[in-house]
Amino acid sequence: MSDIEIAQQATMKPIIGLAEEKLGIPAEHLDPYGHYKAKVSLEYLNSLTDQEDGKLILVTAISPTPAGEGKTTTTVGLGDAMNRLGKKTIMCLREPSLGPCFGMKGGAAGGGYAQVVPMEDINLHFTGDFHAIGVAHNLLSAMIDNHINHGNELGIDSRRITWKRVVDMNDRALRKITVGQGGPANGYLREDGYDIVVASEIMAILCLATSHADLKERLGRIVVAYKADRVTPIYARDLNAHGAMAALLKEAIKPNLVQTLENNIAIIHGGPFANIAHGCNTVTATKTALKLADYAITEAGFGADLGAEKFLDIKCRMSGLKPSAVVLVATVRALKFHGGVAREDLNNENLEALQKGFANLERHLHNVTVNYGLPCVVSINHFTFDSEAEIALLQEKCAALGVKCVVAKHWAEGGAGAEELAREVLDIVDHREPDFNYVYDADLPLWDKIETISTKLYGAAGITASPKVKTEINALQEKYGHFPICMAKTQMSFSTDPTAKGAPSGHTIEIREVRLANGAGFIVAIAGDMMTMPGLPKVPAAERIDISDDGVITGLF
Amino acid sequence: MSDIEIAQQATMKPIIGLAEEKLGIPAEHLDPYGHYKAKVSLEYLNSLTDQEDGKLILVTAISPTPAGEGKTTTTVGLGDAMNRLGKKTIMCLREPSLGPCFGMKGGAAGGGYAQVVPMEDINLHFTGDFHAIGVAHNLLSAMIDNHINHGNELGIDSRRITWKRVVDMNDRALRKITVGQGGPANGYLREDGYDIVVASEIMAILCLATSHADLKERLGRIVVAYKADRVTPIYARDLNAHGAMAALLKEAIKPNLVQTLENNIAIIHGGPFANIAHGCNTVTATKTALKLADYAITEAGFGADLGAEKFLDIKCRMSGLKPSAVVLVATVRALKFHGGVAREDLNNENLEALQKGFANLERHLHNVTVNYGLPCVVSINHFTFDSEAEIALLQEKCAALGVKCVVAKHWAEGGAGAEELAREVLDIVDHREPDFNYVYDADLPLWDKIETISTKLYGAAGITASPKVKTEINALQEKYGHFPICMAKTQMSFSTDPTAKGAPSGHTIEIREVRLANGAGFIVAIAGDMMTMPGLPKVPAAERIDISDDGVITGLF
Repeated sequence: MSDIEIAQQATMKPIIGLAEEKLGIPAEHLDPYGHYKAKVSLEYLNSLTDQEDGKLILVTAISPTPAGEGKTTTTVGLGDAMNRLGKKTIMCLREPSLGPCFGMKGGAAGGGYAQVVPMEDINLHFTGDFHAIGVAHNLLSAMIDNHINHGNELGIDSRRITWKRVVDMNDRALRKITVGQGGPANGYLREDGYDIVVASEIMAILCLATSHADLKERLGRIVVAYKADRVTPIYARDLNAHGAMAALLKEAIKPNLVQTLENNIAIIHGGPFANIAHGCNTVTATKTALKLADYAITEAGFGADLGAEKFLDIKCRMSGLKPSAVVLVATVRALKFHGGVAREDLNNENLEALQKGFANLERHLHNVTVNYGLPCVVSINHFTFDSEAEIALLQEKCAALGVKCVVAKHWAEGGAGAEELAREVLDIVDHREPDFNYVYDADLPLWDKIETISTKLYGAAGITASPKVKTEINALQEKYGHFPICMAKTQMSFSTDPTAKGAPSGHTIEIREVRLANGAGFIVAIAGDMMTMPGLPKVPAAERIDISDDGVITGLF
Repeated sequence: MSDIEIAQQATMKPIIGLAEEKLGIPAEHLDPYGHYKAKVSLEYLNSLTDQEDGKLILVTAISPTPAGEGKTTTTVGLGDAMNRLGKKTIMCLREPSLGPCFGMKGGAAGGGYAQVVPMEDINLHFTGDFHAIGVAHNLLSAMIDNHINHGNELGIDSRRITWKRVVDMNDRALRKITVGQGGPANGYLREDGYDIVVASEIMAILCLATSHADLKERLGRIVVAYKADRVTPIYARDLNAHGAMAALLKEAIKPNLVQTLENNIAIIHGGPFANIAHGCNTVTATKTALKLADYAITEAGFGADLGAEKFLDIKCRMSGLKPSAVVLVATVRALKFHGGVAREDLNNENLEALQKGFANLERHLHNVTVNYGLPCVVSINHFTFDSEAEIALLQEKCAALGVKCVVAKHWAEGGAGAEELAREVLDIVDHREPDFNYVYDADLPLWDKIETISTKLYGAAGITASPKVKTEINALQEKYGHFPICMAKTQMSFSTDPTAKGAPSGHTIEIREVRLANGAGFIVAIAGDMMTMPGLPKVPAAERIDISDDGVITGLF
């Protein structure tokens, strides 16, 4: 059965009753969106302040193949397993973007028997959070051009507008555009471009904001452009845009509740991509889960070099969160891929390639355990084609590094298939004290922060940038030197070359562009050819998606 | 008190219980969106087929001032009044667009004590229908450029792409743009442009579709471009886009229920503008109301020359609906405006100007009663400044034309203030038989249809078009000659000149552009300078919108 068929056969419970039964959230603090999705009121979340926090578990992964290695699936499977073992556990996931859903990767609601439901709703519009972010972003864009059109009292240098437009779609044609064509009625001509919604600074802001007031303050301090003196910033609040933007995000700031196939609660809230943004779900969602349960499991996007790095160096630093353990997801297939095996041969046993590709897992493990000082367990997301010899080799190599490696079969068996993983995780969390530290200090200069991430985590020899970009970094250093770095880099490799598999060393990370995200409170450093607007493949996944006459959706995966 | 303050003090009832109590809709057929909005399942609507239809009342208006004359307010007030008189009545409104909400006109949920609530939700994202339309539209756009980028097997002539992109925002900078800049990775360079979401053909399709199957079929037959032979159309179905688009509209196709301040049910569904699109709420919503109540009151956008014309010649023709009466909304202020009074002097009595401006009302009345053969009552949306002499003059002039003119005070008094209007409407609906006919026959050539609308309804001497546009109309005639016309024209005047107030005669209507809307099933004829993407004013309404620390929105109006 396909993921969507399994999801459509789920026996879902009405979410309001379920949230009350499992977590004790009173119905009056829940806003239903249909019968199986709900938003929790901020008043209720504020009332939890005095409750003790549960333990936080981070799920991350090796450098993934294009299909992903099953981080969300593992998060769901592990959560279901822990609940099966009688441990009150909430999963915190990111909201899927329509871009990959219609593109190549598919949706992001887990897979097999480890899914969150209603799968179609979650993958399509869900509770409208991304739409709200997109429209808040584009309102600000429209107000910038409108201000210039009506006389430009603020003196915006139209050549130095840094605020682009967004759409929740993979649309390469919009990466670089010219707006304002067609004569005086349409304003002034200028170059512009679109990012995908998940790359919007507003997505990051929503993920980091702690209240309506904090949200509005952050929106107000977004830098949208500079004056002709090149240095004086124009803020969103100068355009009086932030009040309306915050009003548009009134509901989006509230965490969303859904359930797994096994009727355990998951919070799905916020959804940046870790290759072009900071890649974590909202601080609000994670903190809520820690208040409501004894264990909160959350995911960070793509490989640990991107998702876990930003989770730890940005999200944890800004919010005070501290994980107790890390689950590193790997697949035998992906490790053979890193060992040089062609995609069509990944289902054949190949111990040599596995041995070689293990270097990728080893680097990520080293980063998690040594660079961040966090206890870690490796979870093999099991495929039918994995041979016993391959699994044995993997476990042996992990053991040699002092790390447990567990085979998890939640995809085929649901929570029951991840019980061994759950026991390992509980063993760590309940008995070991992490010695967590960030990979760089806040007071390190911006350039050195980028260099530290690149050399310590990516294995690079160093970083490079054009004189123009260096000048920009220097200019940012003065006012924003204390900001953490949000790297935008391919998820396919530790280098900026997506084809450099395994664990490349001694390479150079080229910083092509830097962007100030003043509302979010970090500096985006774009490495190599990374683009903040993906394109669709030759045959987009959208072509397979359909709906029957009685409204049943097919082809989502 | 402001509209939003009145709305925020409303005593709302949970919509699920209210819909069950008032209309007998079982809870299992309702999907809640929060506690005060809900969508009705299509299965339930299909189960009503055998029920007898109620009577249909259309609310339209004179040529409006920029703020609007209160069509929505009157629809709500009249509906509340009829319910007060014990008549089971449902109001059918259009969903507001974020464009005017952040621009100049404000929201569209009524005003004063004749509002639908929750006002902020309705005006901001509501149940996400517009976002779904926008993203379905932009998915198709992305798939067109993606197809060309990957080799263009279908042979799309990139100079003849007719499908633009959309955003739900007033953003003049996007009217004419160039996409695909930046080199081979970003596809092929071409001119493109954005329309506002309400002008999307998908909005029209949603408003006219009768089922999931009909929706998908209409989406599939959208013409997006032509081949290099200039005549062979490329359909959305050629790109395999229609299944995914229909899946995105799975929930949007279901009508939305809310309530008035007096706890009567209103259906708000679909929301095109009548100046650039066909301007009526969905056929599904109107038909549902007719099945569930004895009276359904619906509105059509802007003045009767636009909204009522399209309601009657497009929506009624396609769906078989037949109104029993028309309410023509006017204000003393707007009629004085049509009589030449400056905006700042509209609150002063001026009988001469009123007499002169009455020409506008008279033309609309003539159109409704003579051209369409429908019984009509004039409703004066009362303002405090209206003098008794002014009202008396209006009533006298209407009486001379054989039409009742009622002063309605629902804005200040709620339903109680519109009881006299309600009694007049009931008197007509229950005792008079309309002699309804369309203003043109379906088999009239396209050019002649446009000419008929222009001469019969707008008082024009004739129509004109460039040779290029004439050629296009001739080309469309062959295959689509039976389609009705959807005029895009300024709402400010019977002419294409927004400053030509009153009832201009003998003018010429210039058709600047024609567009085929094959999925909707009509031809859009754009007259004069009308633009399908509005701009923001110097001080956009967005600047006044704000949200408090505890999440209360202010400044929406």
